[in-house]
Amino acid sequence: MTRDTWILEDEGPAAAAKYETLFALANGYRCLRGENPFLATERGGSFIAGVFDKSDAQVLELVNAPDPQGLKVYLDYEAVQANEEGAKNYKRTLDMERGLVESAIVFKSKTGNILELRHEKFVSIANVHRWAERITFKALNFSRRILMESTIDGTGCNAVGHPLDCAKHYEVSGTHGFKPGICLSAVTNERRIEIAEASVIACEDQGACLNLLRLRQGRESITEVYELKLEQGREVTVWRFGATFCSRETPGFLAGACERELASFRKDGYCGELSAHEKAWHKKWDAIDVRIEGDDLAQRSLRFNLFHLASSAPSGDSRSSIGAKGLHGEGYKGHVFWDTETFMFPFFLHTQAEVARDLLLYRFMTLEGARANAAASGCQGARFAWESADDGIETTPRWGVDYAGNHVRIWTGDIEVHINADISYAILAYYRATGDRVFMKDYGLQMLLEIARFWAGFVKADTHGKSFSIKNVIGPDEFHEHVDDNAYTNYLVRWAFGKTLEIAGDFENESPDSFAAIMERSGTAKLEFRRWKEVSEGLLLPKDEDTGVIEQFSGYFGLKEYPIREWDENDMPIWPAGLDVSKLGETTLIKQPDVVMLFAMLPEEFPRESKIVNYDFYEARTMHKSSLSPSIYSMVGLSLGKTSHAYRYFLTSIRTDLDDNQGNASLGIHAASMGGAWQSAVFGFGGFSLDAKGIPQFDPWLPEEWTSLSYAVKVGRAELRVRVSRESIRVESDMSLKVVVAGREIMLESGTPGTFPVAKCD
Amino acid sequence: MTRDTWILEDEGPAAAAKYETLFALANGYRCLRGENPFLATERGGSFIAGVFDKSDAQVLELVNAPDPQGLKVYLDYEAVQANEEGAKNYKRTLDMERGLVESAIVFKSKTGNILELRHEKFVSIANVHRWAERITFKALNFSRRILMESTIDGTGCNAVGHPLDCAKHYEVSGTHGFKPGICLSAVTNERRIEIAEASVIACEDQGACLNLLRLRQGRESITEVYELKLEQGREVTVWRFGATFCSRETPGFLAGACERELASFRKDGYCGELSAHEKAWHKKWDAIDVRIEGDDLAQRSLRFNLFHLASSAPSGDSRSSIGAKGLHGEGYKGHVFWDTETFMFPFFLHTQAEVARDLLLYRFMTLEGARANAAASGCQGARFAWESADDGIETTPRWGVDYAGNHVRIWTGDIEVHINADISYAILAYYRATGDRVFMKDYGLQMLLEIARFWAGFVKADTHGKSFSIKNVIGPDEFHEHVDDNAYTNYLVRWAFGKTLEIAGDFENESPDSFAAIMERSGTAKLEFRRWKEVSEGLLLPKDEDTGVIEQFSGYFGLKEYPIREWDENDMPIWPAGLDVSKLGETTLIKQPDVVMLFAMLPEEFPRESKIVNYDFYEARTMHKSSLSPSIYSMVGLSLGKTSHAYRYFLTSIRTDLDDNQGNASLGIHAASMGGAWQSAVFGFGGFSLDAKGIPQFDPWLPEEWTSLSYAVKVGRAELRVRVSRESIRVESDMSLKVVVAGREIMLESGTPGTFPVAKCD
Repeated sequence: MTRDTWILEDEGPAAAAKYETLFALANGYRCLRGENPFLATERGGSFIAGVFDKSDAQVLELVNAPDPQGLKVYLDYEAVQANEEGAKNYKRTLDMERGLVESAIVFKSKTGNILELRHEKFVSIANVHRWAERITFKALNFSRRILMESTIDGTGCNAVGHPLDCAKHYEVSGTHGFKPGICLSAVTNERRIEIAEASVIACEDQGACLNLLRLRQGRESITEVYELKLEQGREVTVWRFGATFCSRETPGFLAGACERELASFRKDGYCGELSAHEKAWHKKWDAIDVRIEGDDLAQRSLRFNLFHLASSAPSGDSRSSIGAKGLHGEGYKGHVFWDTETFMFPFFLHTQAEVARDLLLYRFMTLEGARANAAASGCQGARFAWESADDGIETTPRWGVDYAGNHVRIWTGDIEVHINADISYAILAYYRATGDRVFMKDYGLQMLLEIARFWAGFVKADTHGKSFSIKNVIGPDEFHEHVDDNAYTNYLVRWAFGKTLEIAGDFENESPDSFAAIMERSGTAKLEFRRWKEVSEGLLLPKDEDTGVIEQFSGYFGLKEYPIREWDENDMPIWPAGLDVSKLGETTLIKQPDVVMLFAMLPEEFPRESKIVNYDFYEARTMHKSSLSPSIYSMVGLSLGKTSHAYRYFLTSIRTDLDDNQGNASLGIHAASMGGAWQSAVFGFGGFSLDAKGIPQFDPWLPEEWTSLSYAVKVGRAELRVRVSRESIRVESDMSLKVVVAGREIMLESGTPGTFPVAKCD
Repeated sequence: MTRDTWILEDEGPAAAAKYETLFALANGYRCLRGENPFLATERGGSFIAGVFDKSDAQVLELVNAPDPQGLKVYLDYEAVQANEEGAKNYKRTLDMERGLVESAIVFKSKTGNILELRHEKFVSIANVHRWAERITFKALNFSRRILMESTIDGTGCNAVGHPLDCAKHYEVSGTHGFKPGICLSAVTNERRIEIAEASVIACEDQGACLNLLRLRQGRESITEVYELKLEQGREVTVWRFGATFCSRETPGFLAGACERELASFRKDGYCGELSAHEKAWHKKWDAIDVRIEGDDLAQRSLRFNLFHLASSAPSGDSRSSIGAKGLHGEGYKGHVFWDTETFMFPFFLHTQAEVARDLLLYRFMTLEGARANAAASGCQGARFAWESADDGIETTPRWGVDYAGNHVRIWTGDIEVHINADISYAILAYYRATGDRVFMKDYGLQMLLEIARFWAGFVKADTHGKSFSIKNVIGPDEFHEHVDDNAYTNYLVRWAFGKTLEIAGDFENESPDSFAAIMERSGTAKLEFRRWKEVSEGLLLPKDEDTGVIEQFSGYFGLKEYPIREWDENDMPIWPAGLDVSKLGETTLIKQPDVVMLFAMLPEEFPRESKIVNYDFYEARTMHKSSLSPSIYSMVGLSLGKTSHAYRYFLTSIRTDLDDNQGNASLGIHAASMGGAWQSAVFGFGGFSLDAKGIPQFDPWLPEEWTSLSYAVKVGRAELRVRVSRESIRVESDMSLKVVVAGREIMLESGTPGTFPVAKCD
């Protein structure tokens, strides 16, 4: 395994906005966009988890907070810039193993002086309030002072450059010059959340060559200017220490907290903090890494997905979750979608179950909002928001822009109700994998019950009251709006009803006191259970009895066919000729898997033959206009022996942001696609699954390019380490447990690896 | 004469900063930098004559005021930008005849919609508080709304991008939304000058397709967003009306003044104001134009010089003058130098004498500051500032950066005293050309006396008290600092002493009461006159008696010679090899004419033979590192029959900003070089001069390329129109007067042109 597969290189100034996402550094508490210290910012930003505001925006959005990263170096009064004539040997890399970004540049001023610079930045995952930079200067052919300008910028806003959508969500409440050191405080407009950013520059030689020359306090920014005296040939290193606090977690006067933190940070030193940060990453990688031998491109790309997904996870804070774009940008306004439970959740569940628990707790914290959403649609129980911000109230914008640039009504917030079933699914998956009965008692079962109460009121009975429909919804395939009886929704709702009743029964039998308390908290009467059973059994599940194809929704089979005949350079389908993209709902083309999604989530519920028929039918009609699509086709395909497209889909999936194949990487990472990438690697190629009883199964398959695939998964309290080579599968567990490898049931002894011949290989 | 010689075309986005100067529009009251409506601003700005502030800058500087020009057009949510892929047929031109900038672009959005835009801007010279734009839209292949964003930006500062020098000179004191219409008020930090900028957008169809959608009020900016509904193929025109007021000239609540002005501007209409503006330019061009037939490049370039120089002139405001960079940028901090009196003044004197008078009145208004400067150097009388802002106190920065990038002490403010003699010279030239005795009585003579008083105290007597020196000065050639007895200074001081005594004598004889009052105002006692005469007669004028070369200063002949052997592509000398540019003072190389400058200003004071010897000697040592240099060599050369270099120097001079041959056109125009260009054209090629008695003389010479040269000059109350062809000189006057043409004295009858054979031609 080469070190190279940990390193990602920047493509240079032309792709600056994209790399501000790709090189963003996050620690769950906050994210600093990957602003290039040697380029003007394109889409800069600093985001703090859970800090949402509405101001004059359409809906609540993740606040693009004051940005502490402003840094400029001036040589002979010229700013050192990577896109200027004097710039040479420019290089910038993301080191995923160590969690830092390194830049280097050699800059020649118009007066002929040549300066060599190296820059390193990290956002500590050991102490989430800290971030820092190390800058090394070497004057190659001169001895003279240079200038360095450090700025905390509070002039920014969300959706900069969008005349109607741009919104400034905070007021700068004060600037403080510590001389040296600067601090800027702000408070959000509606939620009144306070934020303080501070930084200070220090030099390894105790200031002998570093002097603070000027402090500039603007209305919405603060800057300090240092001179640094360089001598030809001698390297000088300076550090910028950064501290960030927010009233969500820190009480009191935040500028004071910043000042104290900067002092203790300086005492601990840059190297001290960096070392703690690297150790924490080492530990994290040990849990999450998936190793691919023989395919460096796939290895590096997959790690890129895992790095950012892991960086996005809340750091012990159950009041926030992961937005569709991580903490990495303004895309989807920082909102939490089904993406979290359906695509990202399995990764955390099987590598860091405590994070998975926090993600579910976030939903529990928003129950009040979910009840309000249900009430707004005339139902009891809980209806979790399709787009969720800080309080669970539905925050989907009502207006947007379609593929043709038209101003269109967005219906997802009104009718994409499957989110409720997705959350039930995640709670149940968590319970199956961890057996965490305390969670189920305190939070899980209550949510399942409140969700079930919603469905019971939301379904429509036919005139006989025997069969039930879920009408006027949007399924995962958003090309078709206002459909009745979407297969994905109906199947998942029915399944969740069954599981909810089952677990409720268990609790009633085993802990009647707890059960009574849960029933009371959720407002559920035992009487309701009979109705739930009727609804569940009577829910319509349309299917073509001749072909076995499950109809995606009532009437889908009658839509117009537009066969896909062309693919772009990324192997993504091209819109068929003659199609009107504003009328996709009239065609059988779909955005992403809907029926096929069920096979990924509930494999045991469908016979293999049915899965094959449906996979073939729907794959041919999928435009993959969601980044969530390819990974699912890869993974489900592998489970069905359809290996020919699996690697192509996998590569498309793990390259989503790297190749920017959705065209919007600058707005943040595709966090769900990253979760899908892990699922595709571990569930798909790694062949890992849990059966209905929670017993681990391994049935791997390796693409031609790969010599081996290794990963770790947690099941209950056990950690399993798996290595698949072309010859064998090796499974090791730190606890004794039963596993099924390539169809054979085996009792694994703790610490004694079992090695088994390969069942299938390319 | 083709229309083409009135039009200047932009070189495109790469040269944006330069064209923000070249396409700046000014009316003497204010200047709006030539910001491209389809490009992000590089060095934007808005300047109002006389609005200086210091704040935390090194010295008082012309304030880069709130900028009302922010304009963005969004097609399908993409900003229309000239440097984007979708931009086609981009063109921007300055129409000097009409005083406006026109832009055109065709922009294709990523969704395929194509929009054609035409944009026109003018800053009215008919009503200096008004500026306006006309924007014409045509949707070529779609029908849909587009968005337009109009901003008044108060976030800017002076010296943006300079970490130590940048300074914000005002606070935004309020923003006002008129709905429609926006206004931003600001007040400067020290001088407490209030400024208000306002604008509103209106549509020719009375708003049927234009709607105000949003008003955004930031802490330091205000923006309004309009939608404009376009129908395929139909042209729609909108106007932006702008109004600007400042407490220097307007009392009361400025935002109210803006609102009223916008209302009356809308009533007058865009076309109404444009027509008044064009008429005013037509009248101005009639007075100032110099027509060259046969050489379109020279014609267009020369007009460019006259256009901006005329635009910079104070509009009836004798409290401000013209900075070295016009009103067009931040270069030289908006300060007024000798450039105004020595280079620009003759142009105004002979085309718009009322402006020349205002320029001198500005100096009179700063007399108190000049007295303080004199007192600070231990002298009586007046010492006008080398760099002057609003009050005449010396404002030269004490520190700057040299050619090698070193931080160096600037001595000009301390010792470049010849400015005082230059002002005397301009007063005397004004008096000779206009005979304006009222001016001389009220202002001119008082200034001459106070200047003379300064010199009388500033000179140093030798031990015998017979000869006098002016020690430790800088002459026009700034390569040599701390020199004694600079020829330019000493000759001009001596000459001014003589003229001052002469005019004082006249006044004493003819208007003894006025004379007594003037003497009292200037604090002069008659006794002082004897000392002045002694000083004047005893001032050292060093010269080599063998060669006849006037020594530029004591000891110059002993300096090291570095012969100039190479010239760059603009025919400008290249630093000789082996030279240390930080030690220019040790060489005979000079920056610009010093001795030769005297021949331009006082031709009658030197014999022709002496002029030739000195011209040859100094031209060979001149690096032309000032834009003021080539025009003087051109003009003096022509008077000496040295025609071979005259055209080359002339072209260099008129192309200074167009070719950016000093490398700093982005910081403002080279206003002195523009004055020099006119002098070179009219005094040099046109052969116009006044003899010591004020009698007009014409002795023209045409370069090979030219078929004719025409110009108008004012002498006293007479306006003379001159046309020089290869065969003859035609002179016409609106008053009868005596002229000398090619050495022959002639009595010109009013309205009867005289035509004379050519004396010399190439």
